Amino acid sequence: MLLNTVFSCFVFYSVLLVLKMYIIAIITGQMRLRKKAFANPEDSLRHGGLDHFRKDPDVERCRRAHRNDMENILPFLFLGAVYSLISPSLSVARCHFLVFFVSRLVHSMAYLCALPAPTRSLAYVVAQVPCVSMAVQVLMVVASYA
Amino acid sequence: MLLNTVFSCFVFYSVLLVLKMYIIAIITGQMRLRKKAFANPEDSLRHGGLDHFRKDPDVERCRRAHRNDMENILPFLFLGAVYSLISPSLSVARCHFLVFFVSRLVHSMAYLCALPAPTRSLAYVVAQVPCVSMAVQVLMVVASYA
Amino acid sequence: MLLNTVFSCFVFYSVLLVLKMYIIAIITGQMRLRKKAFANPEDSLRHGGLDHFRKDPDVERCRRAHRNDMENILPFLFLGAVYSLISPSLSVARCHFLVFFVSRLVHSMAYLCALPAPTRSLAYVVAQVPCVSMAVQVLMVVASYA
Repeated sequence: MLLNTVFSCFVFYSVLLVLKMYIIAIITGQMRLRKKAFANPEDSLRHGGLDHFRKDPDVERCRRAHRNDMENILPFLFLGAVYSLISPSLSVARCHFLVFFVSRLVHSMAYLCALPAPTRSLAYVVAQVPCVSMAVQVLMVVASYA
Repeated sequence: MLLNTVFSCFVFYSVLLVLKMYIIAIITGQMRLRKKAFANPEDSLRHGGLDHFRKDPDVERCRRAHRNDMENILPFLFLGAVYSLISPSLSVARCHFLVFFVSRLVHSMAYLCALPAPTRSLAYVVAQVPCVSMAVQVLMVVASYA
Repeated sequence: MLLNTVFSCFVFYSVLLVLKMYIIAIITGQMRLRKKAFANPEDSLRHGGLDHFRKDPDVERCRRAHRNDMENILPFLFLGAVYSLISPSLSVARCHFLVFFVSRLVHSMAYLCALPAPTRSLAYVVAQVPCVSMAVQVLMVVASYA
């Protein structure tokens, strides 16, 4: 399967996006420590007392960025894999993966840095274009098996 | 792999469910605009001012529907794929996929339209039946490799 | 593909982790019923009235455990699958899967039982080690296809 160059190309960008999600998790944890805002009483007890069992706007921002990644990157891991199996041309496929990859990078930066609207929303919409394109192409191939 | 008819049947319903998740995301965004309730200060500034950086019950309902989809549809994308690899009969497999697909459609409609309980919970439970069935069947095949 | 013993080993632990996630969903539901704290007005109406449409700290704890599973187990379902395709040795691969599996079990127990910090965080970090290791190994194989 890794002899399939389209699939390998997909795996490359996908693994980078998974690592990007891990980085957002790390940033969230660092923000919790810096702002002293913990999601659990047991964590706040370890870091100065129950006062720190509270919400913080910067931590919530990281969590929204992470959740948006789950809503979009995780379905991409599926769509990109099945799209790779319908033998698209490598250049067209790479274009799909690259647009998604770059848009999601921009989305994360726009979210974490609170860039003025509509930067983040635009990045979100652009990233959806290759996803819907892959979904439609896959459906056309497998529709007869429904 | 797409010559495997069970896998192709699985891919068909899975891609439709991913598109269904995208539609819930779009509905959430439209609801935010209509109710003027934004998750980020930068979004609310663009749409009339910081007053609109607030929660709204209808937006939260959309978000709960979306989260429940992530909790259930995303694991199905994995379970259905590995189940397709253990060579089940096509009719039995299609039955698993169809029950899950229809139940999750009903679940989303019951959530977004706030249908009286226990419609939504019933749809959730019915959708879990094929998932647990697939999980058990896969485990029996691969248990010796643990 | 299931003739690939590494992949079958991966599938075994992955399916168990998916079932573990389902169990957290069931615990959340039971906690909602026991604490009479429902996420939707239509559910609370069925269980004694709108007073029960409220948040509860024990229910929120279950939901945080579930969300953390989505953030970590769902990407593992992808990483482990592609890692299985790069032909790692069975013993090394099994070690990756087992460390992740046991750590995530500990993580869930530490979360639901509110064990003193840093038990849960430690389990989280240990589970990330095989994930990052698999990600790096996969990247090295497919980097030339970018």
